[in-house]
Amino acid sequence: MANNNFRLIHNCSHSGARVAELATPHGIVPTPVFLPVGSQATVKTLTPEELRDIDVPIVLANTYHLYLRPGIALIEKMGGLHKFMAWDRAILTDSGGYQIFSLAPLRRVSDEGVTFRSHIDGSEHFITPELIIQFQESLGADIIMVLDECPAYGVSLEKVQEATDRTRRWAERCQKVQKRSDQALYAIVQGGVFPQLRQQSAGYLTSLGFAGYAIGGLSIGEPKEVTWAMVEETVTLLPEDKPRYLMGVGSPEDLLEGIARGVDMFDSALPTRVARNGALFTWHGRCNIRNTVFSQMEEPIVLGCDCYTCRTFSAAYLHHLFSREELLGYRLATIHNLNFINSLMRKARDAIRDGTFSSFKDSFLSNYKATDEQVRLSQKQKWLKSRRQANN
Amino acid sequence: MANNNFRLIHNCSHSGARVAELATPHGIVPTPVFLPVGSQATVKTLTPEELRDIDVPIVLANTYHLYLRPGIALIEKMGGLHKFMAWDRAILTDSGGYQIFSLAPLRRVSDEGVTFRSHIDGSEHFITPELIIQFQESLGADIIMVLDECPAYGVSLEKVQEATDRTRRWAERCQKVQKRSDQALYAIVQGGVFPQLRQQSAGYLTSLGFAGYAIGGLSIGEPKEVTWAMVEETVTLLPEDKPRYLMGVGSPEDLLEGIARGVDMFDSALPTRVARNGALFTWHGRCNIRNTVFSQMEEPIVLGCDCYTCRTFSAAYLHHLFSREELLGYRLATIHNLNFINSLMRKARDAIRDGTFSSFKDSFLSNYKATDEQVRLSQKQKWLKSRRQANN
Repeated sequence: MANNNFRLIHNCSHSGARVAELATPHGIVPTPVFLPVGSQATVKTLTPEELRDIDVPIVLANTYHLYLRPGIALIEKMGGLHKFMAWDRAILTDSGGYQIFSLAPLRRVSDEGVTFRSHIDGSEHFITPELIIQFQESLGADIIMVLDECPAYGVSLEKVQEATDRTRRWAERCQKVQKRSDQALYAIVQGGVFPQLRQQSAGYLTSLGFAGYAIGGLSIGEPKEVTWAMVEETVTLLPEDKPRYLMGVGSPEDLLEGIARGVDMFDSALPTRVARNGALFTWHGRCNIRNTVFSQMEEPIVLGCDCYTCRTFSAAYLHHLFSREELLGYRLATIHNLNFINSLMRKARDAIRDGTFSSFKDSFLSNYKATDEQVRLSQKQKWLKSRRQANN
Repeated sequence: MANNNFRLIHNCSHSGARVAELATPHGIVPTPVFLPVGSQATVKTLTPEELRDIDVPIVLANTYHLYLRPGIALIEKMGGLHKFMAWDRAILTDSGGYQIFSLAPLRRVSDEGVTFRSHIDGSEHFITPELIIQFQESLGADIIMVLDECPAYGVSLEKVQEATDRTRRWAERCQKVQKRSDQALYAIVQGGVFPQLRQQSAGYLTSLGFAGYAIGGLSIGEPKEVTWAMVEETVTLLPEDKPRYLMGVGSPEDLLEGIARGVDMFDSALPTRVARNGALFTWHGRCNIRNTVFSQMEEPIVLGCDCYTCRTFSAAYLHHLFSREELLGYRLATIHNLNFINSLMRKARDAIRDGTFSSFKDSFLSNYKATDEQVRLSQKQKWLKSRRQANN
């Protein structure tokens, strides 16, 4: 199978869901797939061995973060990103567009590129679509992303139109300067919450022909029904034979909703971030390990769970680690949550192949108590605000 | 070999150093040995598997910490400390004497026992020598310690005399109430920096006959020459055929000095604590991984080091993790430091067996730049002060 080939294996007859395989220079990635986030060249708290134990086939790293620290040239000198972080499976690097437009203060955008200040030390930087491709070619990930402009939720149609048009022009420039043939370049569909802009964006980008298509600018604070309406709007305009990647989505319930709409790839810091806050996934919903109900629980958090944490430790021990703020707790929770998500994706793939995806999804969702919509939105707002100050 | 048997294998002909084996219900511990500190039933940042990979045969946990959180009864209900923390090798529990006298505010000591307030929530507690043995029998460690009174450095002879006498009476009471025969009970020699009190303490405790003898009340802020004078004073009074355990010592140079004076066991939070501050052991001394000289270093921290960290990652990657305050960095540094100390102990054992310990020690010390004495004392003072506020 040629590198970066996307091979469709099975389409669900009751939904848009599909199973496929994505060939990369660092192994085959079965889809639908969830990419754990390792912005700083580390999936927080875990070693590469632990990710392999969970059977994670691909992780995401971030060009924006790595450009600021430790610097692109340094990682290139160290033999590239795979070697630097000692990860021999696939990597996708995000371009940093979203980070520049959500993290960096005092940015100025022009058609040429974007000037921004580092959220770490305030230093000024100017980057262009051409530079972002050059950076990602130096890092050497298997999948790289175009530079996009991602307007915040709530911005006017005129502003979003402008950003969407610029994203289209930038995507074309990225495509033109790409030199390495072993990296797959994905475009990013923008258009905010405006169907006509999503259509324009998807139409133009697919006419250029990319190796894959991301759906960007969603899951940034808008209500869920808007997210799904925009995903549906966009997916129908994307080619069947290319991977579709919904950026920033990662809760169990949303992953299944995305899969049902024909999405193949997802990434989100949510499973790892909430793990460090003590929120662990179970088949009934998230539980908070700090809750005193767990202080005496001899069983693991999820009975029968095959992750290292549940195979080895009681919920009471995990509760103890969190109550003492022991660093081992953050690791064990992260392992559990990533294993949970990875298992969910495997079960989803199996169900699609078996023609039982719809009932699998219904059954999962009827057991799983998702986080309340209002709570979710207010948490998201708080988080977006906090990460503008601190580092993600 | 019977449980808790101590079998002398070889005595160094040029120094007091000796090699032995300590049989415990959870495996043979080769001595001299260093015990990593896991006060809260976790060696900070590491899993039991990682400790096994480093080939750590025994760890220390703390009765004081575990009594306060999560509670002795809870750990007993969970099947004991080994099961709770998923560690199937040997454990030594410290009695908590040192912690009560250094961490807990507002303590009142009487012959009956000690009343103190929790450093966590201020709640009042009263414990006795009898209770401390009962607690340690519930926890189920392989080696348990008597309750001792540990006066701070700088206290008058009269006060230290009083504490030493009380420690003797408490040791006798501990011995009397011990029920489990599978646990080895060690006495703790006190006496501060006063040779005559050390003599009295050692003489009395050895006359009672314990499974092992700890040297307590040192490495708490006194100058190094005083530490070693007291160790020498004490060791000569301890029986040849029982293990000698110097509490609170753990820098590479001090371990070799202790071994040369006939000490078999050591514990200290130093190797793991300084690791989390970015100080990594090398054969030339500690280096600070945050230093920019490491930012471009493709080699591991210690060339040829067989630890997971050095086998897998460059110094530059470790520097990056520390500069971004990534939790993985604290783990990788902890693995390296514990492996370094464990290797040093193995090399020391080999050298004692080969009759080359003195030259091994001289050669190590001539290469290894120890932390400056003034810097060391002021760091120690700062640390002792900070842990009175925060939790260790």
